[in-house]
Amino acid sequence: MIRKLFRNARITTPSDPGSPLSGKRQGEVHVFENGALLCKDGFIEGIGNEREVLSSRAADDVALEVDCHGLCMIPGFVDPHTHMCFAKRREEEFSLRLQGTDYLEILRRGGGILSSVRSVRRSSEEELFSVTRDHALSALRFGTTTLEIKSGYGLETEAELKMLRVIDRVGGETPLDIVPTFLGAHAVPEEYAAIPDDYVELLIRKMIPAISEQGIARFCDVFCERNAFSVQQSRRILMAARENGLGLKIHADEIYDLGGAGLAAELQVVSAEHLLAANEQNLRAMAKQGVMAVLLPGTAYSLRKPYAPARKMAELNVPLALATDCNPGSCYTESMPFIFGLAVLNMNLSVNEALVAATLNAAYSIQMAKTVGSLDVGKSADFLLLDGESPAVLAYHAGVSPVVEVYKRGERVA
Amino acid sequence: MIRKLFRNARITTPSDPGSPLSGKRQGEVHVFENGALLCKDGFIEGIGNEREVLSSRAADDVALEVDCHGLCMIPGFVDPHTHMCFAKRREEEFSLRLQGTDYLEILRRGGGILSSVRSVRRSSEEELFSVTRDHALSALRFGTTTLEIKSGYGLETEAELKMLRVIDRVGGETPLDIVPTFLGAHAVPEEYAAIPDDYVELLIRKMIPAISEQGIARFCDVFCERNAFSVQQSRRILMAARENGLGLKIHADEIYDLGGAGLAAELQVVSAEHLLAANEQNLRAMAKQGVMAVLLPGTAYSLRKPYAPARKMAELNVPLALATDCNPGSCYTESMPFIFGLAVLNMNLSVNEALVAATLNAAYSIQMAKTVGSLDVGKSADFLLLDGESPAVLAYHAGVSPVVEVYKRGERVA
Repeated sequence: MIRKLFRNARITTPSDPGSPLSGKRQGEVHVFENGALLCKDGFIEGIGNEREVLSSRAADDVALEVDCHGLCMIPGFVDPHTHMCFAKRREEEFSLRLQGTDYLEILRRGGGILSSVRSVRRSSEEELFSVTRDHALSALRFGTTTLEIKSGYGLETEAELKMLRVIDRVGGETPLDIVPTFLGAHAVPEEYAAIPDDYVELLIRKMIPAISEQGIARFCDVFCERNAFSVQQSRRILMAARENGLGLKIHADEIYDLGGAGLAAELQVVSAEHLLAANEQNLRAMAKQGVMAVLLPGTAYSLRKPYAPARKMAELNVPLALATDCNPGSCYTESMPFIFGLAVLNMNLSVNEALVAATLNAAYSIQMAKTVGSLDVGKSADFLLLDGESPAVLAYHAGVSPVVEVYKRGERVA
Repeated sequence: MIRKLFRNARITTPSDPGSPLSGKRQGEVHVFENGALLCKDGFIEGIGNEREVLSSRAADDVALEVDCHGLCMIPGFVDPHTHMCFAKRREEEFSLRLQGTDYLEILRRGGGILSSVRSVRRSSEEELFSVTRDHALSALRFGTTTLEIKSGYGLETEAELKMLRVIDRVGGETPLDIVPTFLGAHAVPEEYAAIPDDYVELLIRKMIPAISEQGIARFCDVFCERNAFSVQQSRRILMAARENGLGLKIHADEIYDLGGAGLAAELQVVSAEHLLAANEQNLRAMAKQGVMAVLLPGTAYSLRKPYAPARKMAELNVPLALATDCNPGSCYTESMPFIFGLAVLNMNLSVNEALVAATLNAAYSIQMAKTVGSLDVGKSADFLLLDGESPAVLAYHAGVSPVVEVYKRGERVA
């Protein structure tokens, strides 16, 4: 029963209304210029103006008082979409792509997702753990306190289970809350190239039940795209996952408007990701069903593509979340401050819209909003101190992380 | 006489031909996959493949051997254009700009360059030193080992001299080589708003001679732009500076095509900066006179403007350098890795072109190429170790600095 008071902070935080924020409410935050946060055993007991927080407590109840020296306090970032469990970087492939080598040629030279599959299959669990933990700890230093990590570089039952065990272990051996997602439907593995429907059958009949039985994934995700999985295949996979008790996510309409966003609405999945090419009708359907759009501006940046139409989505009332998409191919970054800057400067989200997208809505997009994503009484005391006056510093200090202290459950962890 | 051998490095470096690289040569670098660097008293004695470097020396000549573990080695960054001597950030102004407030309104509310002038004039030398040193040390951690810093927030003789003394002191009290530039012609100060030509007279008759006499600036720079200084005023100021023995630089055609690039060619200045709006004829004239274009992609990023036409400049044979433009208004970043990423991904420079622009050409743009900017025998042993296989990692690891070790004159400094 240790009570801690963090005082003299400029607090900006969403306040959780019990559902994601969207449309005109996307940027709804509370600001406490002379703010304080009181926590007990790692959970928030009081938040607001210092005087009000203090008046609710006798001074001798507080075991430890921390002066935040007027720094800006925000909730810890929630990064709800990463592929940071991988064995090897693909730096050379990046260089080839810069030189204009097209993706098919990169595949021919052994690059692309399938090269990550080969290296993950060959890696020991220990090697994979070491790389994944290092990425998670790097994300933590950039202020991410809750993190989703997908499997999907195994593409066979044992290798996928290996990845999910590694992801689970990262949760146990770092301060982060880790949310594991099964992405067996990331690509059709080489050995099924000629018989992709057989791989879909394998996913449905063997892999999903096996993953579900072991209880080591909370979500099932599908890469719905040309040369990956069709809308029809994606529907079958996601319905099987739902029957097996997994939450649903979908990589939708990243490159072509296949209708993935429409499927997301139809199945009322928790979140649909990328959405650069999604059509307006399907975005409206997502808004109606409350499906979160998880936007990945780092991927547009790294691939030199147009950004997702975030302003249009906000107008259509689609709730928005932000994520790094950290992966060894299309976007290698663990930095939510970098993503925040891109969202504000290149997707024209306001600072407060981006803040909600990177905290509360991100938490909703991985069903973690009950415990994290905002500084509300009862939630985990996960917060950051920024070297600045407001969250605007995350975009203002370009390319430089203003995160100076990171707290998880009231303890300083970076 | 301490000799050190850095071995087992993947070295990529320009080799200095005695002049800046441009056009087809802009990206000319040497790569040594099993590279070594030998230095004595902080200067490079040998560079190349490990076996060749070793064969030139008896083993017992080497006092210290450092294993670089296969990391990528490049020259320390040279950042040739910054305004990082300032007293206060302008985070609130950044937020106003994001919300669409126009620049005149920001000025009316006390923002813009003139707000930095007010705070610098009010600051003690000690306060100004502390802020500037912290920025310089931040730049150092991002791999900058040689750094230009401009005055220009004083706009009166004493305040400009105060800034230049601070900049000089940062050079003395940090490991960086600091190049001071006098930018009294940054803006017309408030007290001369109605009589701008009188300020030009003051610059020419009093400030430039006083700065020259004290010998604390190597260059004189002018902000040639509407609402700043006309081409004619800029010419007079720069010619006076030349008569007083200062090197010349010019902020040219950032917003409007006033002809600043043409003036740069006419006066054969060392470098012209920004150039987003420069016309082709003037760019050709710059190429003919060998005037360096210093590109500032962070500023385009932060202001949400189009990027300078770097590919076109390379085609026209204009030598290119890169800089942060670190300043509290239009671009607050000390990170050359971030600038490198923008140059590659948003201005379409190749990795090697960007490397030359951020090292050798940047050194030429501040007349420091005799001692820094490339890993050549006789130059200072200023180099970085990157967590990657090649300089491509500077763009590949988006928003994350891959600089793991920084060496200045053979000593580890970050």
